[in-house]
Amino acid sequence: KQIVILPGDGIGKEIMDAAVRVLQAIAENFNHQFTFSEHLIGGAAIDGEQSPLPETTIHACKKADAVLLGAVGGEKWDALPGEKRPEKGLLGIRKELGLFANLRPIKAFTPLLHASPLKEEIVEGSNILIIRELTGGLYFGEPKKRIPEENAVVDTLYYTQTEIERIVDKAFQTARTRKKRVTSVDKANVLESSRVWREVVEEKSKQYPDIAVDHLLVDAAAMKLITNPKQFDVIVTENMFGDILSDEASVLTGSLGMLPSASVRTDGVGLYEPVHGSAPDIAGKGIANPLGMILSASSMLRQSFGMEQEADEIEYAVQMTLEQGYHTPDLSIKNGTVVGTKEMTDIILGNLA
Amino acid sequence: KQIVILPGDGIGKEIMDAAVRVLQAIAENFNHQFTFSEHLIGGAAIDGEQSPLPETTIHACKKADAVLLGAVGGEKWDALPGEKRPEKGLLGIRKELGLFANLRPIKAFTPLLHASPLKEEIVEGSNILIIRELTGGLYFGEPKKRIPEENAVVDTLYYTQTEIERIVDKAFQTARTRKKRVTSVDKANVLESSRVWREVVEEKSKQYPDIAVDHLLVDAAAMKLITNPKQFDVIVTENMFGDILSDEASVLTGSLGMLPSASVRTDGVGLYEPVHGSAPDIAGKGIANPLGMILSASSMLRQSFGMEQEADEIEYAVQMTLEQGYHTPDLSIKNGTVVGTKEMTDIILGNLA
Ligand SMILES: CC(C)[C@H](C(=O)O)[C@@H](O)C(=O)O
Ligand SMILES: CC(C)[C@H](C(=O)O)[C@@H](O)C(=O)O
Repeated sequence: KQIVILPGDGIGKEIMDAAVRVLQAIAENFNHQFTFSEHLIGGAAIDGEQSPLPETTIHACKKADAVLLGAVGGEKWDALPGEKRPEKGLLGIRKELGLFANLRPIKAFTPLLHASPLKEEIVEGSNILIIRELTGGLYFGEPKKRIPEENAVVDTLYYTQTEIERIVDKAFQTARTRKKRVTSVDKANVLESSRVWREVVEEKSKQYPDIAVDHLLVDAAAMKLITNPKQFDVIVTENMFGDILSDEASVLTGSLGMLPSASVRTDGVGLYEPVHGSAPDIAGKGIANPLGMILSASSMLRQSFGMEQEADEIEYAVQMTLEQGYHTPDLSIKNGTVVGTKEMTDIILGNLA
Repeated sequence: KQIVILPGDGIGKEIMDAAVRVLQAIAENFNHQFTFSEHLIGGAAIDGEQSPLPETTIHACKKADAVLLGAVGGEKWDALPGEKRPEKGLLGIRKELGLFANLRPIKAFTPLLHASPLKEEIVEGSNILIIRELTGGLYFGEPKKRIPEENAVVDTLYYTQTEIERIVDKAFQTARTRKKRVTSVDKANVLESSRVWREVVEEKSKQYPDIAVDHLLVDAAAMKLITNPKQFDVIVTENMFGDILSDEASVLTGSLGMLPSASVRTDGVGLYEPVHGSAPDIAGKGIANPLGMILSASSMLRQSFGMEQEADEIEYAVQMTLEQGYHTPDLSIKNGTVVGTKEMTDIILGNLA
C-alpha cells in the first residue's frame, strides 16, 4: 500500500513519526507492505515551495492509496492573503482528491471523562459520528468576492442535488454499521439549500427503511449536543454547519487531543488527520499527544484498506495505554503518569505486541 | 409609551399576560403611562389572516415605541411552504423594523447552576453578551433559490460594509458598559465576507482604544463557549453564526427558560422576546415559565425607554424569587418549590412592591 505522509506544520512532524512507527509495527506483525512517501503541505510548503499545496504533493496524493496529514497552519503565515495561506493546502487537497465526506467520531473514553467540561452523567456513554459534507457549500461556492460598486461582499452557499445525495447516502450506509439512527441537521426554516437537503434525506430514507431518521435545525443541534449528547448516533450535515458542530462536539468528552478524522470518497481513498491543530506553541518540545494521529492511522487501515483486525489492535493498544494511566500533558487521568510523545508511542508499541 | 404586544403561538399568550401584569405594576409604582395594543403574528396570524405577518401588525409595530413578542411556530404549520410559515413573521418584523442588532445576554444564576450540563466550576460566574447581526447574511441574501438547469440550489451570504460597521459599532459601544472586551467571531480562513468583517473590526477598534478586541474562528468559538465560557464578555458575529452560537450558549447555565433577548436599532426602538420557543406541548396548561418574557420586558424598559431603575427592580424581584426557591417545572432549584405561571407572576409582583 502506498501511503503519502504530509506532516505539515507545528507538531505535525512529531506526531507523524509516532504514527509511522505504529504502522510499521502493524506491517511487521501482519506481514503487510506499506511504503511511505513524504511531501510538503501548508506553511512548510509555503516556506519551501511558495505554495500551500505544491503540484508534486497533489500528484503524489492522487497516486496514493491513502494520505496521512499531521496539521497545518501557524501564526507565522497568518498575515498572508487568503489564497496563499496554509489552510488553502488543506482545502485544496480535499477538493483535488474529491474527498466529500468528513467523518468525525466522538467517543467518551472513560479514563479521560473527568476532564470533560460536562457533567459525567451527561456525557458518559456518548458515541457520536458526525458526517460533514466537505467539498461544497459556502467553502467553494462562487461568487465569493468583494463588490466594490455596492461596497459589499458576497459568499455563496451552493449545492448540487447530486452532492447532497452522495453524502446522505454515506450517512445512511454508515448508520447501518452503527445504531441505525441518522439525524440530519439543516436550517430549513431559513435556507433554500436546507429545504432541498431535507427533501433529499426524506427521499433517500425510503431506500433505507431499517434506519431511523430525524431532522434538527442547526441552532437546536448546537444546544442538544451539550444537553443530551447521548441521544445522537450519526449526524449528517452540510460543510459549514459540520465544521462548527464537529468542533463543538470535539470538546464534550475531554479528549480533543485523541480524536481522529477521516475524509473519504466512495472508492475508499481517504485522507486521515487528527482533529487538533498544529499547536506551534509546543512544537519541537516532544510533548505533543500522538494519539489523534495514531487513531487516524488506524482509521485509515479500517476505512481505506479494509484491515479491520489491524485497526482493532491499534485501538485496543491505545485504550490499554490510557487504562494504564499514561497520557501526554494535554490530557488528564486521575493518578495517571504524564509522558512525552516518544515514550507514549513506545508504550503503545509495547501494548501492540 | 406605546407598546405593541404580539403573543404569537403556543405558550406565547400565557407568558405575555404575565409580562403585561408586571409592566402594569411598574407603571403604577413609577407613575408611567404604558398603553398596550395586541396584534397577530406567526401561526396565529396564519390562522386568522392567512399571513404570518399581516399588514396591520407591521403598521402597528412601526408606530410603536417598542414591541414585545411571545413566541412563534408549532407543528401545526410545519408543512407549509417557506414563505407562509410562522417564522417568516419573525424574520419579517425584524426586517421591516430594521432591527439589526440581536442582544442575547447569558448569565449564570447561582440557584439554577446545578442544573447546568456543565460542571459548576466551568460555568459559574459566566456573563456573556452575544451580539448577533440580524438583518443580513445568509438570511436575506439573493439569489436564494433552486436552479433547475443545474439541478442545484443556492443561498447567498451578502453584507454591505455599512451593515458590518453598524453592528461592530454597537458591539464596541455596548462593551463600554461592561467589561470592555469584544470577541469578534468569523470564518476568515474561508469566507471573503469574514475577511471584510475582520478588517472592519480592526479599523473600528481604533476609535475605541479603551476596548480590548480579539478574533476567533467560529469553530473555535463553538469549542471555547463550552470549555471556558468565563473568558468572554461581548461576542459579536454575523447572522447565522450568531444564531448557532447564541443557542449553544443559551444552554450553558441551565436556565434557558429565563433568558431574554432584544432586537434593536440605533434610535432605541426594539423588539423583545424570550429565547425559548412556543412549546406547544405545554401550551394552555398554566405551567410555562414567564421569566424569559418578564426579563425581556425589563430589557425593553432599559434599552428602549431608558428606565434603568424600573428594569433593575424587575431583575431584582426575579432574582429574589429564585432565591426564595420558586420556579416553574422547566427549571430546577435544590429544595425549591414548583409553581405555575400565574403563581410565579404573583410572587414576582409581591417581590416588586
Ligand atoms: C482550516 C479550516 C479551513 C478547516 C475547515 O474549516 O474545514 C478546519 O477548521 C477543519 O475543520 O478541518
Ligand atoms: C425561527 C428562526 C428563523 C430564528 C432565526 O434563526 O433567526 C430563531 O432561531 C431565532 O434565533 O430567533
